[in-house]
Amino acid sequence: MTSAPAALASKPGSVDLLIDLAKADMAGVDALIVQRMQSPVAVIPALAEHLIAAGGKRLRPLLTVAADRLAGGADDNCLKLAAAVEFIHTATLLHDDVVDGSQLRRGKVAAHLIWGAAQSVLVGDFLFARAFELMVETSSIKALDILARASRVIAEGEVLQLTRAHDLKLSQDVYLEIIAAKTAELFAAAAEAGAVAAGAGDDARIALRDFGLNLGLAFQLADDALDYGGETAALGKNAGDDFREGKATLPLLLAIARTGEAEAAFWEKTIGRLEQTDEDFLRARDLIANSGAISATLELAAVYAGAAKQALRVFPANDWRAALEALADFSVSRRS
Amino acid sequence: MTSAPAALASKPGSVDLLIDLAKADMAGVDALIVQRMQSPVAVIPALAEHLIAAGGKRLRPLLTVAADRLAGGADDNCLKLAAAVEFIHTATLLHDDVVDGSQLRRGKVAAHLIWGAAQSVLVGDFLFARAFELMVETSSIKALDILARASRVIAEGEVLQLTRAHDLKLSQDVYLEIIAAKTAELFAAAAEAGAVAAGAGDDARIALRDFGLNLGLAFQLADDALDYGGETAALGKNAGDDFREGKATLPLLLAIARTGEAEAAFWEKTIGRLEQTDEDFLRARDLIANSGAISATLELAAVYAGAAKQALRVFPANDWRAALEALADFSVSRRS
Repeated sequence: MTSAPAALASKPGSVDLLIDLAKADMAGVDALIVQRMQSPVAVIPALAEHLIAAGGKRLRPLLTVAADRLAGGADDNCLKLAAAVEFIHTATLLHDDVVDGSQLRRGKVAAHLIWGAAQSVLVGDFLFARAFELMVETSSIKALDILARASRVIAEGEVLQLTRAHDLKLSQDVYLEIIAAKTAELFAAAAEAGAVAAGAGDDARIALRDFGLNLGLAFQLADDALDYGGETAALGKNAGDDFREGKATLPLLLAIARTGEAEAAFWEKTIGRLEQTDEDFLRARDLIANSGAISATLELAAVYAGAAKQALRVFPANDWRAALEALADFSVSRRS
Repeated sequence: MTSAPAALASKPGSVDLLIDLAKADMAGVDALIVQRMQSPVAVIPALAEHLIAAGGKRLRPLLTVAADRLAGGADDNCLKLAAAVEFIHTATLLHDDVVDGSQLRRGKVAAHLIWGAAQSVLVGDFLFARAFELMVETSSIKALDILARASRVIAEGEVLQLTRAHDLKLSQDVYLEIIAAKTAELFAAAAEAGAVAAGAGDDARIALRDFGLNLGLAFQLADDALDYGGETAALGKNAGDDFREGKATLPLLLAIARTGEAEAAFWEKTIGRLEQTDEDFLRARDLIANSGAISATLELAAVYAGAAKQALRVFPANDWRAALEALADFSVSRRS
């Protein structure tokens, strides 16, 4: 009888430990976010507020703060970088929703459906520029380097994903390359920037970057599984978005491979040519679940969550490390 | 009998002096541009190349190089900043064309009509991030500060312009506020960044920023006049774009004020409600020309061009200063 190594064991996990520990710091980050999204041009804070007030868990700025604290940071240097990370994330959400034509975001009507695609693009640009203004205030060329690079890699990942949408034969390697760029890179950069703010050495900095990268992969894999397994109300966005957009995510790719010739015509019609009825999503969801594609996706997510926890072993066991470990488990076990 | 002061006198001007002087430096900038628009994601260089190879005069990076040289710069520090400035400009062009639904750019079919709006938005994001990567390589927090701020101000200007489109009663002050933000700010930042690269003192830096700001205002005013006075072939974009989009530019605002009650219904229909026939543009063009609105706009452009030249008086008369003075005159006298 064998059992998974402790670092890989799947636990329910939680983000609450981290939220509690970082409460005071995140109040500072939130204050910065509200202050720096202001502009004399009224539509900018209105549109930004719509998205930012809708919340989400602020996972990425939490990572920056936690990485700073775990690496021995004791001042407020990391707060501006954390706010910058959230602005970069918000800018990409605004642009993604325009690019994908998404209807919902964080349980609310997507901004481009209220203010128009043009304003969403431009307010995204505003937030992106504001992020760099915040970074400049820290005078850290190293942090600027990390987050400028991440911003470029994210754009590359988004373009690659768009180029390969509807591709029934996308390899798992290219899928992982896409999610590493469009999602995991910002998690990695958020954690690495926190390490830089703390003045950490290379070992700690690389460990935290590694933690963020693996956490981001786990997070996106679970997200892609949830898109075929959750309810709209719980997800905060329409379950089935990926299917409707014909996005080649791992649950879909695995199910296509596993259902073989029997369902080839169905996948070609619904994903290849994007000809879909409402019933098609329910059928796809059943095929995906019954083929074991959801559980295989979540198992891979658990492997990355384990690697994330492993990366933290260079740090002494303390509350911050425990909170980040619980976050890694949560990234896989969450229901929305 | 009075005559205009020498600094304000309108001369034909030329950009050729500057292009000649900066030839070697601009070859370096072009090489950087080509090198840094590469990406393993093939659609990115293809789309960027479409726009960047179409050329334009590269006025903004020319400004960075010229400002550096006039302020005593003697090394290659300014080249990366100049390439970054061109990337920021190209990113805003890509996003603007999506926002405005423009058909042509630099005489070629707009990128979003070939690759789609989504790819144009994302490649714009890529170029914007690349610009910051280039700036980071110079390790100049001061230059990063100037160009991050400019990027944010440009976005604010674009949003403000979009909010006030179709506004027949837009004041000249708000119009100038819009063009200062969306156009002149990048000219100002391009020149100021050049001064910073040269290690210039505050006097020289502020003078060069002032030169760029006034040049940018003159340039945009002339552009807005050309949109009612040029030919498609010469302009490199459809003359009449501003009219078709209902953009409240100075030639239009002046003509609306000057034609009064007699044409109020025509302007309300064509601009206020954007109900237009092809003949309407020709009629608008005639009304604008006959009301003297074109010449009034160009006269204001000449005032700003004069102020730009005035700002250069802190520098000794030399070839670089003469070339920038000729550029200021050219910004008003150009035919496309």
